[in-house]
Amino acid sequence: MSALQKLKEKYIWISYFSSAFELLQWDMETHMPKKGGKWRAQIIGSLSEFIQIQQTSDEMGKLLNEAEKEAESEEDKALVRVAKKEYEKFKKIPPELWGKFALETAKAQRIWEDAKRNSDFSIFAPQLEKVVELVKELSEKVGYEENRYDALLDFFEPGLTVKDLDKIIPKLRKFLIGVLEKIERADKPKDVFLGKFDIQKQKELSKRVLEIIGYDFDAGRIDVSAHPFTITISHGDVRVTTRYDERDLKYSFFSTVHEGGHALYEQGIPERFRGLPIGDGASMGVHESQSRFWENIVARSKHFWEFFKPILAEYFEDFKDVPVDDLWRSSNIVERSLIRTESDEVTYNLHIMLRYEIEKALVNDEMSVKDIPSVWNDKMKEYIGVTPKSDSEGALQDVHWAHGSFGYFPSYMMGNLYAAQLLYSMKKDLSFEENIRSGDFKALLDWLREKIHIHGKIFEPKDLMKRATGEDFSTEYFMNYIKEKYSEVYRINL
Amino acid sequence: MSALQKLKEKYIWISYFSSAFELLQWDMETHMPKKGGKWRAQIIGSLSEFIQIQQTSDEMGKLLNEAEKEAESEEDKALVRVAKKEYEKFKKIPPELWGKFALETAKAQRIWEDAKRNSDFSIFAPQLEKVVELVKELSEKVGYEENRYDALLDFFEPGLTVKDLDKIIPKLRKFLIGVLEKIERADKPKDVFLGKFDIQKQKELSKRVLEIIGYDFDAGRIDVSAHPFTITISHGDVRVTTRYDERDLKYSFFSTVHEGGHALYEQGIPERFRGLPIGDGASMGVHESQSRFWENIVARSKHFWEFFKPILAEYFEDFKDVPVDDLWRSSNIVERSLIRTESDEVTYNLHIMLRYEIEKALVNDEMSVKDIPSVWNDKMKEYIGVTPKSDSEGALQDVHWAHGSFGYFPSYMMGNLYAAQLLYSMKKDLSFEENIRSGDFKALLDWLREKIHIHGKIFEPKDLMKRATGEDFSTEYFMNYIKEKYSEVYRINL
Repeated sequence: MSALQKLKEKYIWISYFSSAFELLQWDMETHMPKKGGKWRAQIIGSLSEFIQIQQTSDEMGKLLNEAEKEAESEEDKALVRVAKKEYEKFKKIPPELWGKFALETAKAQRIWEDAKRNSDFSIFAPQLEKVVELVKELSEKVGYEENRYDALLDFFEPGLTVKDLDKIIPKLRKFLIGVLEKIERADKPKDVFLGKFDIQKQKELSKRVLEIIGYDFDAGRIDVSAHPFTITISHGDVRVTTRYDERDLKYSFFSTVHEGGHALYEQGIPERFRGLPIGDGASMGVHESQSRFWENIVARSKHFWEFFKPILAEYFEDFKDVPVDDLWRSSNIVERSLIRTESDEVTYNLHIMLRYEIEKALVNDEMSVKDIPSVWNDKMKEYIGVTPKSDSEGALQDVHWAHGSFGYFPSYMMGNLYAAQLLYSMKKDLSFEENIRSGDFKALLDWLREKIHIHGKIFEPKDLMKRATGEDFSTEYFMNYIKEKYSEVYRINL
Repeated sequence: MSALQKLKEKYIWISYFSSAFELLQWDMETHMPKKGGKWRAQIIGSLSEFIQIQQTSDEMGKLLNEAEKEAESEEDKALVRVAKKEYEKFKKIPPELWGKFALETAKAQRIWEDAKRNSDFSIFAPQLEKVVELVKELSEKVGYEENRYDALLDFFEPGLTVKDLDKIIPKLRKFLIGVLEKIERADKPKDVFLGKFDIQKQKELSKRVLEIIGYDFDAGRIDVSAHPFTITISHGDVRVTTRYDERDLKYSFFSTVHEGGHALYEQGIPERFRGLPIGDGASMGVHESQSRFWENIVARSKHFWEFFKPILAEYFEDFKDVPVDDLWRSSNIVERSLIRTESDEVTYNLHIMLRYEIEKALVNDEMSVKDIPSVWNDKMKEYIGVTPKSDSEGALQDVHWAHGSFGYFPSYMMGNLYAAQLLYSMKKDLSFEENIRSGDFKALLDWLREKIHIHGKIFEPKDLMKRATGEDFSTEYFMNYIKEKYSEVYRINL
């Protein structure tokens, strides 16, 4: 057997353990009884460590070097390239450091929960300091060219750097703040999704909309969890979760479509890539571009509600008398609000910028942990125009830092930007609005499959976007999209 | 760290993978989407192989030998004894043989399904012959003192031999056939559990009865699967499944209580045994004694229905007007029937004896696979008085042989016998009938916890039964139980 073949088989073998790991996670969030938690944490920790050891074994290093010489097809070359990059990166992290990182972030998560419950950042600060120190050490071990933060970005958005972000952000921020000011002077649409909505019917509606956008229920399922997520157990088994709020139909509906977008991506990755390092999404940002595309660009569009209103009325008949315009405008209410996960398309990226700036400063020793709440509150005031009344709705709202996921937030923004660029490119090939109005979501999905999904993790995000759209990545598309859409929603001139 | 401590840690580490394996199984039977099946089979196969390799590694052998010298407490000595026995047994099986066994039984299962669907034993026979050959080879590798079949029995019921069974069975068979003849001449009770029963309400009733007998839902859950089972994912996470038949309330009710009995046993095993070879039930037979105890001895008793009738009527109010006697007698209808899993307490063991005799003859080269259907049908006629019209309701009804689980069936019978002996012993300590009538199931459970559950797998079944009841194992108790109970149910003199 060739080294290349051996390498593939070894990766697939390791992926079986990853599948078990994913199922353990899914179950923990959806079905596990309370008293299973203590052992589950141990089980997940041990499996995770085992997988990490297998992936960075000397045997893998040897196989990778030999396979590199054997790889002939573009696909095999890409496989070895992606695998080698990850191998070398993770190999640079000493197991003790990795273990310490796992331990301290696990602790941090519990302390964060406690701090959030008490809305007191000072409870979290000492442990977060430890995490930041470990994150810095990790960056140094992994290495970077210009900015320590680049090492972290690369975990989530391969190829993205501080330089890139600092080129994008100032202009985008100014633009979004301007849009927000203009929208504020216009009439705010009333929210027709508030009321009382039977949970069982919401569940049926969630299934219906997933089916409509092309999610394959023979290769997945939907369950309830506190925080919605998408998880790939294996090929043919990509699951989503959502949660239901009896008083607000928007919540489950758009979070279902959002996770559906992630799941369509995962369901579109070719089976022959599965278990291999190329058998994932290209990056967190590209993943987010897919979820955002379906959630915001499709399901919050006017054409969507033209198509979907009669279906919605099958489940909640009061909507029969609600004008399409009201459904559509209610889906796009812009507000100066405090919580990222509940924010609209205009303010969302401002929430991200604030977090990015704080992260970058922390990692580069330009700011200390204890100053986070005051910097947070100042930036919130400056960017979004509101000030949190407490840490729980301010600097303690996200779990990411407790997880040690520094460098993750920018990928949410990149997802929004990618999605808009994909939209304008798609519009050249398809009768986008007409497809949506007539319920032909397959046309959209086929386009995304061909341009994005079938490539798995073969290309880095920048290259993938260029191949998909024929152009270099640009933020102009997102700004255009916001201008066009919100001019119409708010009946103003942006 | 001592070798003993290292050994324990190693077992616990391996148990994390077993937990993942169990969850993968549970999910496959309850939640997995259809298209996940192909990869799931690979994942489960690889994990199973990995666990087997870890358990029989040379490192484990060395640790076991060293730990044996260190063990001082009774518990540690028992741990090493149980572990060593299993280690040595599995170590004798060459990995190639084990691999071949796994492969051929996996094939056999698919072929069995096909044969059963077509009700044609000849489709299954050639593959079953292969499985029987492998089972014989396995017995030879593992070794035995007197009978080749003893090697197989020991996998499921440590210490049980052909000699034991052949002492028990003839008398018991004669007795049961006699009971059956007498019952047949009496009036058959009408079945009040047939009708139309809302599935949602059946689900609520299942939860209620599990709670009532003491199942801890904070450490478990109930789901639906094609074949009901109980599975331990980890300490604090013991799950049961059942299935619902809208037309027959008995089915879900008694299978839920049956699985509940298994689960109470698992929930009662001490946490300090978990992950260790002593952290299981004592044997399949002892496990079955617990499920049978709750299903038959408790839930099919008159006192139970005195207590439970008003609760049942909360879910299905028509039962308000049904006399307790009818509920109780309907729970205990005896019939000459073809299917083991649907059979009553009187005929159940006859179904087992037939299987045992065929298995034993096959393994000892006293019979050939192709003759199974005719021998099966003859014995059915002789023992139970009915003849299958087709192989699917005859020799193809059970999956066990396709699984290669030769030697398993007798543990079902042993479970019935153990359960009755436990009953008479319990009656000396408790006001058994009064406890049930008043709904004090905790008294029963506490007794079983103390006598059986808290010992995990420390003792072999024979020793455990002796410790629990103060007497040697005897079939007399079961025969007494049947006589007493069915004299009353059928208003005859047995």
